Amino acid sequence: MLDEVFAACRDDTSGAPADYIPELAAVAPDSFGLCLATADGLVYEVGDTEIGFTIQSISKPFTYALALADRGLDGVAEHIDVEPSGEPFNEISLQPQTQRPSNPMINSGAITAASLIAGRDTSEKFERVRRCYSRFAGRELRMDESVYDSEARTGYRNRAIGYMLRSVDIIDVDPDDAVDRYFRQCSIEVTCHDLAMMAATLADNGVNPRTRERALSTSLTERVLSVMTTCGMYNAAGDWVTTVGLPAKSGVGGGIIAVLPGQLGIAVYSPRLDPQGNSVRGVSACRELSRRLELHFCHVTRSARTAIRAEYTVAQLPSRLRRSPEDSAVLAEHGERARVYELHGDLLFAGAERAVRAIEGNGTELDALVIDLRRVGEVSTVARDMLEGLQAELVREGTRVALVDPDARLGHEVSSLDPHDPRGRVFIDRDTATEWCEDIVLDRHRPADTSTRTSITLDEHPLLASLGTEERDLLCADFQQRTLARGEVIADRGDPRSGLYLILDGRVRMTFPGTDGRVHRLVTLSAGMSFGEIPMLIGKPFMNAIIADTRVRVAVMSPERFDSLAESHPRLKLALLERLAAAAYAQMDATVRTISGNAGNY
Amino acid sequence: MLDEVFAACRDDTSGAPADYIPELAAVAPDSFGLCLATADGLVYEVGDTEIGFTIQSISKPFTYALALADRGLDGVAEHIDVEPSGEPFNEISLQPQTQRPSNPMINSGAITAASLIAGRDTSEKFERVRRCYSRFAGRELRMDESVYDSEARTGYRNRAIGYMLRSVDIIDVDPDDAVDRYFRQCSIEVTCHDLAMMAATLADNGVNPRTRERALSTSLTERVLSVMTTCGMYNAAGDWVTTVGLPAKSGVGGGIIAVLPGQLGIAVYSPRLDPQGNSVRGVSACRELSRRLELHFCHVTRSARTAIRAEYTVAQLPSRLRRSPEDSAVLAEHGERARVYELHGDLLFAGAERAVRAIEGNGTELDALVIDLRRVGEVSTVARDMLEGLQAELVREGTRVALVDPDARLGHEVSSLDPHDPRGRVFIDRDTATEWCEDIVLDRHRPADTSTRTSITLDEHPLLASLGTEERDLLCADFQQRTLARGEVIADRGDPRSGLYLILDGRVRMTFPGTDGRVHRLVTLSAGMSFGEIPMLIGKPFMNAIIADTRVRVAVMSPERFDSLAESHPRLKLALLERLAAAAYAQMDATVRTISGNAGNY
Repeated sequence: MLDEVFAACRDDTSGAPADYIPELAAVAPDSFGLCLATADGLVYEVGDTEIGFTIQSISKPFTYALALADRGLDGVAEHIDVEPSGEPFNEISLQPQTQRPSNPMINSGAITAASLIAGRDTSEKFERVRRCYSRFAGRELRMDESVYDSEARTGYRNRAIGYMLRSVDIIDVDPDDAVDRYFRQCSIEVTCHDLAMMAATLADNGVNPRTRERALSTSLTERVLSVMTTCGMYNAAGDWVTTVGLPAKSGVGGGIIAVLPGQLGIAVYSPRLDPQGNSVRGVSACRELSRRLELHFCHVTRSARTAIRAEYTVAQLPSRLRRSPEDSAVLAEHGERARVYELHGDLLFAGAERAVRAIEGNGTELDALVIDLRRVGEVSTVARDMLEGLQAELVREGTRVALVDPDARLGHEVSSLDPHDPRGRVFIDRDTATEWCEDIVLDRHRPADTSTRTSITLDEHPLLASLGTEERDLLCADFQQRTLARGEVIADRGDPRSGLYLILDGRVRMTFPGTDGRVHRLVTLSAGMSFGEIPMLIGKPFMNAIIADTRVRVAVMSPERFDSLAESHPRLKLALLERLAAAAYAQMDATVRTISGNAGNY
Repeated sequence: MLDEVFAACRDDTSGAPADYIPELAAVAPDSFGLCLATADGLVYEVGDTEIGFTIQSISKPFTYALALADRGLDGVAEHIDVEPSGEPFNEISLQPQTQRPSNPMINSGAITAASLIAGRDTSEKFERVRRCYSRFAGRELRMDESVYDSEARTGYRNRAIGYMLRSVDIIDVDPDDAVDRYFRQCSIEVTCHDLAMMAATLADNGVNPRTRERALSTSLTERVLSVMTTCGMYNAAGDWVTTVGLPAKSGVGGGIIAVLPGQLGIAVYSPRLDPQGNSVRGVSACRELSRRLELHFCHVTRSARTAIRAEYTVAQLPSRLRRSPEDSAVLAEHGERARVYELHGDLLFAGAERAVRAIEGNGTELDALVIDLRRVGEVSTVARDMLEGLQAELVREGTRVALVDPDARLGHEVSSLDPHDPRGRVFIDRDTATEWCEDIVLDRHRPADTSTRTSITLDEHPLLASLGTEERDLLCADFQQRTLARGEVIADRGDPRSGLYLILDGRVRMTFPGTDGRVHRLVTLSAGMSFGEIPMLIGKPFMNAIIADTRVRVAVMSPERFDSLAESHPRLKLALLERLAAAAYAQMDATVRTISGNAGNY
């Protein structure tokens, strides 16, 4: 596409290079380079992108940026306005009302900006300018001495502007020094490739995407881009905004930069200029790129529409903690009182408003809710405030709130244990947050007479409880009881079958390695449940690791005893097998239901 | 937040209402209304949002919009420029070079726009203007006769502008008629609420978010917003762009509208004006809202960074077609040669560039790939072109491409069967696309001597094949063979156990209802596999529906026979049970692996 745009613009040889000094007129007039740099630093380029030329007026936004960093927004605003002037760039005039240069993109404003640069002496001041530009470009830039000499010899009009500015105290230092610095900055040599990186740095919030060095703060970058939008293309600004719609700056050296904030930078070099002083091919290439790539800033995206990615109750998508039949029944009945909201995209105001509105809509009827922020990109300050306001409101009305926010996007470095703390609980994964919600629902809705015993005896275990007394006693004798410490690995992935385990007290976790390289919980089991039966039944190794989540008491039947049972009591083994198959099936089914519940994925 | 901004701005009672006609001076000077309308049509409001006042200059972008719709961009451009003027709004002057009004937001440009409205006669022309505004507002707007009468009596300066425009042929109709229409349009009565809806319509690509009626095309909306950006706030445009950063328009009636394209519209009403003619509280409220809500158009989002949501091979996340052991082995070895890319967010240029770059990066080493577009929002024309270019390139190099694009976002209304058609195959779900990829990998990498038989006899079925001859013959006699038509429901969700089914030929599909209300495929089974064993083992109803995907031949053992087997041949039943448990386990495990493979979800 860049090649096509290049070819479409190349044939236009109208206009002529600047010739007010011989050094500028000496360029190859039909040079033409075109670069597009993405905000992550990849440069697409075609043509003469490595020819050096002087930056000229494209220096203005960068010196303005350094002046803003040195003096602050207000300090600079006392000297330079930000209004488009509608006048030629080298007009010797000030804004009628304010008596200040209209903006920093015309010569009077740019010379004023040069006068505001900090430094012990004139050489340090210019060195700071040069280093600033170099940070934007990502390499050391140098001045073209012959262009500077020529500018310095002949720049009478700019000297006149300097003295005029000094006469009205807009410049409060030696005007010759400010003008000289302006000549020097205009004479810095760049390539089209450099300019594209400088533009990409503006696009990337002031950070050079290759070196990752910060050249300018985010808020000042926003200001520089604003001024480029209205004032960057001299008196063709309106036409530029309507047909290109990108903050931009051109220079009489033949360069143009244009920036799509957050996304990319464009640079063009072609020295033939139109009557406004903008590169002829530069303007048409930018216009064509904007049209083809739909870069205009008023081109609408709809990211605000989809801030909520998914929404479901804990009854629809339970945690991976396998509950007792009693608790499962309570959650089936009341699980709609706890809800999970997965957000995604960038949370700027409009997206956050949509999300908060939806959550508020049924939030007050809930016992608890989870807001999952893991897929969220940028969170703006206002979105953070809105979510915190929502949490505080919900907590006041009795709804507990958990965040899934492993990267502390909302700035909660620690989780709060206080249930009335509006900051709520913060978890690093959704499953644990869901389990926390289920616990709240169970606390509030479990019938008063329900047993919450977490410990059973072997003959109470459901696998044996329904057998006849004689058979049960026979089997009980085959089990040995063992106690395991918290964190103990009972079986690792790939271990051979080691027994049939019945849980009598505590919790165990089954884990599996995800495609993301992390270990995930498949399910957590507690008293009355069993594990190890599938390796035992089919003779294959453990597929998942089994780890004691707490101190655990289990009863184990050895593989040898299990095998010999078929010989001695085939019918008893058949009964056991049927119960094991049912238990294994119920567990697998619960797992499938948990994992596939979010069926929107399929 | 709106309340806070309202309270912060209310105390400023500087400035005074316009008083050039008595009707404007007669308003309650301290009225103050503030509305924020989202691009989906919800209006947040505080204060005097239902007081009527005349729209005045806020009419200008809307008449300009209608002129653009009537005459086209070029037809209007012959009469009106789009350059900020830097001059007062009622200047009697034209752009020096072009001899046209600088832009449609100053009176000369607005009167010219009014002259360009189509219609048989003057009354139809104004009626079209009134209807256009009403479409933007979403209700019938009316003119305030007394304000119109007063404007028409005293508007000498605007008449002068009209005659001046006629004298240089910028207006080519009766200038009195154009000026009269301009007076009428300025006298249309609106409320702050109306203005917020008009702004939200501009934000929503020209569609009124409440009525869903189109008031203006998307491309003309973009143009109107561009001109508002540079010219909407008279000669405070630069300050407005830097501190508010939203396309806007103000009127001497005391109204201001501001638009964040794609996201929201803001309207303020407060009649005290500053020296530039903009509402004092209106400007400060917009500035405060922009600051607090971070609405500035140069405020950067990073949506481009995350165009690829997930990426994996078909070995990592297979389709739900359960393959034979031989085919599974081929896919385990060569499955990394087929890859799925899930995209999300809006696909504008930068996001598409990122996605195409990543896919291209390893695309040419692949046999096939899937691009899943279901989570993508807006797809720009350039992104569509880029994806089509990528497909064409990949197909040329031998990589087959499938799209998952149920909503035809890339504009493929039908799928192509031609493997060399660069448009590729289009599926409505990812699972089928993944299965198609697996088939390609199998075709290319299956060893030449591998059997691809899809039909077996009963005694070849794996469940029986490993038994001794005597036992197998005994069991075979207990099975009855049946043939099922394609689409036949073999078991429905909730059906009681109806038999143990061994598949001898064809395919069956197990489905489950998702939380999204649609039916999803859990798994597809083929010859050599079995189903119905779990209801049989545990005596519970079918959890999933089982449907014949093709014509299917099965062998069935009835529940009665299965039960009685325990009595007559307990050891045979034990052997069968162990094999069934192993088969059931393998199937569940494959399902869990398929479903949880995309572990990044957890």
